[in-house]
Amino acid sequence: MKKLLIGLYYLIPVISLVGQSKEPIQIIEPVNFSKVTIDDAFWKPRMDKVSTVTLPVCIDQTEVKTPRIRNFEKVARKKGEKHEGIFYDDSDVYRALEAIAYSLKTRPDAALERKADEWIDKIAAAQLPDGYINTFYTLGDLQKRWTDMMMHEDYHCGHLIEAAIAYYEATGKRKLLDVAIRFADHFDGLFGPGKRHWVTGHEELELALVKLYRNTNNTKYLKLADWLLGERGHKYAQGYVWSDWKDTAYAQDVVPVKLQREITGHAVRAMYLYTSAADVATYTHDTGYMDAMKNVWEDVVFRNMYITGGIGSSGSDKEGFTKDYDLPNENAYCETCASVGMVFWNQRMNQLTGESKYMDVLEKSLYNAASDGLSLSGSTFFYGNPLASNGQYSRREWFGTACCPSNIARLISSLGNYVYAKSTDDIWINLFIGSSTKIALAKGNVNIKQQTNYPWDGQIKINVDPEKKTKFKMALRIPGWANGEPSPGDTYTYLEKTDQPFSISVNGKFASYKAEKGYTVIDREWKKGDVVDFNLTMDIKRVVALDKIKENENRVALQRGPIIYCVEHADNRGKVMNILIPDNAILTSEFNKDLLEGVVTISGEVPVVKTSSDGLSVSTSTQKITAIPYYTWNNRGAGQMQVWIPRKAVDIKVGSK
Amino acid sequence: MKKLLIGLYYLIPVISLVGQSKEPIQIIEPVNFSKVTIDDAFWKPRMDKVSTVTLPVCIDQTEVKTPRIRNFEKVARKKGEKHEGIFYDDSDVYRALEAIAYSLKTRPDAALERKADEWIDKIAAAQLPDGYINTFYTLGDLQKRWTDMMMHEDYHCGHLIEAAIAYYEATGKRKLLDVAIRFADHFDGLFGPGKRHWVTGHEELELALVKLYRNTNNTKYLKLADWLLGERGHKYAQGYVWSDWKDTAYAQDVVPVKLQREITGHAVRAMYLYTSAADVATYTHDTGYMDAMKNVWEDVVFRNMYITGGIGSSGSDKEGFTKDYDLPNENAYCETCASVGMVFWNQRMNQLTGESKYMDVLEKSLYNAASDGLSLSGSTFFYGNPLASNGQYSRREWFGTACCPSNIARLISSLGNYVYAKSTDDIWINLFIGSSTKIALAKGNVNIKQQTNYPWDGQIKINVDPEKKTKFKMALRIPGWANGEPSPGDTYTYLEKTDQPFSISVNGKFASYKAEKGYTVIDREWKKGDVVDFNLTMDIKRVVALDKIKENENRVALQRGPIIYCVEHADNRGKVMNILIPDNAILTSEFNKDLLEGVVTISGEVPVVKTSSDGLSVSTSTQKITAIPYYTWNNRGAGQMQVWIPRKAVDIKVGSK
Repeated sequence: MKKLLIGLYYLIPVISLVGQSKEPIQIIEPVNFSKVTIDDAFWKPRMDKVSTVTLPVCIDQTEVKTPRIRNFEKVARKKGEKHEGIFYDDSDVYRALEAIAYSLKTRPDAALERKADEWIDKIAAAQLPDGYINTFYTLGDLQKRWTDMMMHEDYHCGHLIEAAIAYYEATGKRKLLDVAIRFADHFDGLFGPGKRHWVTGHEELELALVKLYRNTNNTKYLKLADWLLGERGHKYAQGYVWSDWKDTAYAQDVVPVKLQREITGHAVRAMYLYTSAADVATYTHDTGYMDAMKNVWEDVVFRNMYITGGIGSSGSDKEGFTKDYDLPNENAYCETCASVGMVFWNQRMNQLTGESKYMDVLEKSLYNAASDGLSLSGSTFFYGNPLASNGQYSRREWFGTACCPSNIARLISSLGNYVYAKSTDDIWINLFIGSSTKIALAKGNVNIKQQTNYPWDGQIKINVDPEKKTKFKMALRIPGWANGEPSPGDTYTYLEKTDQPFSISVNGKFASYKAEKGYTVIDREWKKGDVVDFNLTMDIKRVVALDKIKENENRVALQRGPIIYCVEHADNRGKVMNILIPDNAILTSEFNKDLLEGVVTISGEVPVVKTSSDGLSVSTSTQKITAIPYYTWNNRGAGQMQVWIPRKAVDIKVGSK
Repeated sequence: MKKLLIGLYYLIPVISLVGQSKEPIQIIEPVNFSKVTIDDAFWKPRMDKVSTVTLPVCIDQTEVKTPRIRNFEKVARKKGEKHEGIFYDDSDVYRALEAIAYSLKTRPDAALERKADEWIDKIAAAQLPDGYINTFYTLGDLQKRWTDMMMHEDYHCGHLIEAAIAYYEATGKRKLLDVAIRFADHFDGLFGPGKRHWVTGHEELELALVKLYRNTNNTKYLKLADWLLGERGHKYAQGYVWSDWKDTAYAQDVVPVKLQREITGHAVRAMYLYTSAADVATYTHDTGYMDAMKNVWEDVVFRNMYITGGIGSSGSDKEGFTKDYDLPNENAYCETCASVGMVFWNQRMNQLTGESKYMDVLEKSLYNAASDGLSLSGSTFFYGNPLASNGQYSRREWFGTACCPSNIARLISSLGNYVYAKSTDDIWINLFIGSSTKIALAKGNVNIKQQTNYPWDGQIKINVDPEKKTKFKMALRIPGWANGEPSPGDTYTYLEKTDQPFSISVNGKFASYKAEKGYTVIDREWKKGDVVDFNLTMDIKRVVALDKIKENENRVALQRGPIIYCVEHADNRGKVMNILIPDNAILTSEFNKDLLEGVVTISGEVPVVKTSSDGLSVSTSTQKITAIPYYTWNNRGAGQMQVWIPRKAVDIKVGSK
């Protein structure tokens, strides 16, 4: 990050736009997942696994193996029992409930719903008469509530609201929603203009309040969200105990949000912040947030994002951003939750601008860095998602800080949210996923059905069935990878360009189209039975990084479609740090249905460095190597893996540690 | 670290030994550096460089390039000016003054003394009427003083006391000492039995108070030091703001000091704590501290110490210990100050026990991890001292947190403290450094003179000149490295044993001696003109590490005498990560007077991995490689370096990142 832009801007009075709730300015409105039926060969089995394996794991961990649910029970019992676990554990219960709700909506399951109802009863029983819910303080020193902005009380409120809305929308039951509203009102009673300051130590409540506004139409929640955003960057946190207040950049509290131009601090906090800012700007038409976000987005994507769409290179206590182009591979942090946050934020940016580049980044994070967070079995999880391993990394069954499992579960369960979008008159197709939906345009309903084998090939067949003949535009995203733009800003570039990135026909005939904001737009009168064939040229692409990314000097990564590849021990005689991929290597791809639940692999004969049996001499020989999709690594035991492979043996290190 | 021993012990009432000041129990009393004249070929030029280069750098940084001295001036001016810099900057002024004092004692310099007097006037002018000195709070919100145990107010008091005593002993001027006593009395007035609790957030004051007790004979300072040690481990810090209180292990506050058995937390804090505990135990005869320290020492040395004597493997926010045997090389932290602390603590352990193993560790830290902190030029500094580099590390001119420069300066300026020790009747020679001293035994004075080319060879000639014929024991330390013990506990072992580690003669004839606690003890009636020839067999030793230290698997390090070696880019065609040292490699050593101010290098013809010009094939060929003393690396530009070199090419990594 460059130096933060401060200086004179501090003197500009912050003009509050609170109260000016307006018609949303968004150009595109996403089609809600509940209206999208996914039957995709790639995603459907994964969504089913989340419902049948991941959610039961989350439930078992939350109520049996850890004391998360028990803390709620203790509050209700009022027997003076102590809180167990960490102060932010309540949020994992809410996030799991949210994931359960999404799953129930598209895949009803009576037992799962009973379990959710049981939890909701326990949560409701743990609410204090004044609306407050927090097992840590209620079982501890309640006098200390709302004295330390880093203690996640407001973050819990946010996740509770998200869960409550999801559950209400999935089941029509509003018990949890009423609980959440009481908690939100409790917060609103304490904090806000003319009341006490509150700088959230972990952003989340803001975006949840906008959801609550959307759900209740009560503008006070929107005002409160806007006010919370406005609290940042004025040193208000210093009046309170804020455990980390000395490092205000950690929670994006150095300058006001509208003046932020660079990404700083904790990656997940940052993603939730900018998602909130986009949500608020949607209704307040506040251009200040948009200016800030466009700049911050470029800082993320051009200078601080991995090729996998992961962000936040530093682990340890930071869990976030360091300096520009500092993207170590083996020590990459790339928290799963930060990639989930990238999906949230980039969808909002796409809504507000109609530009496809945001969906390109969303797709990159979704298929790579985020998907990597969940094993193929659905039962184990990565918290960090490194781009190289010497065998030290494995997915785990759970974490002390357990945000990632339920976060990846709620993302995949609600995947339908990201496929289609609409305006009053037109339709956008953002992701290529076998699915169907009915989109209500002003002029009438349109049934859309996508059939595709994406991401393994680029042929997408789209049935467009308006209930009556209707003229509208249909915009198909031309993915950046097809267009020769592996990421905006040329942080990463392809060694080869594709001459003809795509072809398109309607009912088998040439269709006229225009390119607009990264979309192919067909503007015609559609009628029942129309079929669009959209073919993306999907070949193997070699990616090289800007020189400034020192870690990737002289290295190449492999990409095919949206999928980033890696070489892993299991396919390459146990070792991968000894592989070279020269620029003239011939690489081929093939679908391997029995490998890793069916993936396209990339193979080639390349030079590999080998050692003699006594270990005293070294030589190069040719070996067939195979690369697999990055998101599938570590499903066959721990071992070596890397995404960025040397093009030449410029430097040799004996011993891979 | 294994799990901390807690449990039942918590219930044991802590019996305070405060007030029971007794004759020191130490077995050995170190001869003060002011009585030791060093004329050693290795150390004297380094000490001179500290006086003529390092101290001027510290002065320039402290008063010109940074606002450290200006903060004191601002307090005196009382014009409402703001504090600049970090809240703990005052301590750097005190530590620099302490180093200046030591330098003045052995190398008078009128200009340097004037500068010190000028600073002392400024410090004295910044003292409040009640004795308090702290520019951060005095220029800020004085109401908040003594409310946050992590804000280093007491740490400053400790460094002020150490500087004041050193300056008083060097010059006879007591202005700063009076200032320090007033500050100590101010603290004593606020905290102590029956007064307020205080758990120092950074240990230091305790050891300084013992020095003050020794200097003033006022037992209240000893009592206060003992009370401060007793404050730890009872959760007293929770009553105060303690910025990091949630991580009580960071400042060794999980269990009472006497119950501590394992090393935890911030390495420098830990070293100062145990140094204090040893100092207090010396006078209170408290065996509880000794039991704790012996266990903790084994935990440090057997499981958490690098071969360089460096400690604290984790950088980032921890600056300290992680888990046992977690000793990464390239990412080693090994703060210079922690190695200085190892010297302090191990000397105390040697005093209390008379065992040479503590001096072995002291010598290891002194010649390697600590010495590495200062460039050969004397003008640049390492904060961390890694054991491998890919070119990313360089010594720097100064640091935001600038403890290390003055810490290494005060250590080297007072090096004479560690050479000789005595009891009422006997003499110990702990370090082999060309020097002379007069030791006052009960039976009369003894002049001792050492001549040696150590650490480059093992021949030590010792002139023993008692003023009159006197029977006493003279104990010569047999270094662990000579005895086949590169470190106690066999964490590291030599591939070869030395048959005859040393020989000894008195006046050219066989001398009878006994081995006692790791020393060779000659018990005889000494007379004027006696000469002892003590010859340590100094050959090249190959060191291998315990299997548990995964980073060093299949690797070897080179040692000769107390010096640990490394291979560096400048001697090895720019690369060192491609070097193998097979077990059968023939290695030779030679003194190279023009290299790095004169060092013994180790060379051999060994297999080196090379790449073809097109970078597409790799092979092994023989190359002469040269290793240099670790402490001299990075004096010829940044580049590759490593201490642990592969014995075999078990694993090859193309690209050294």
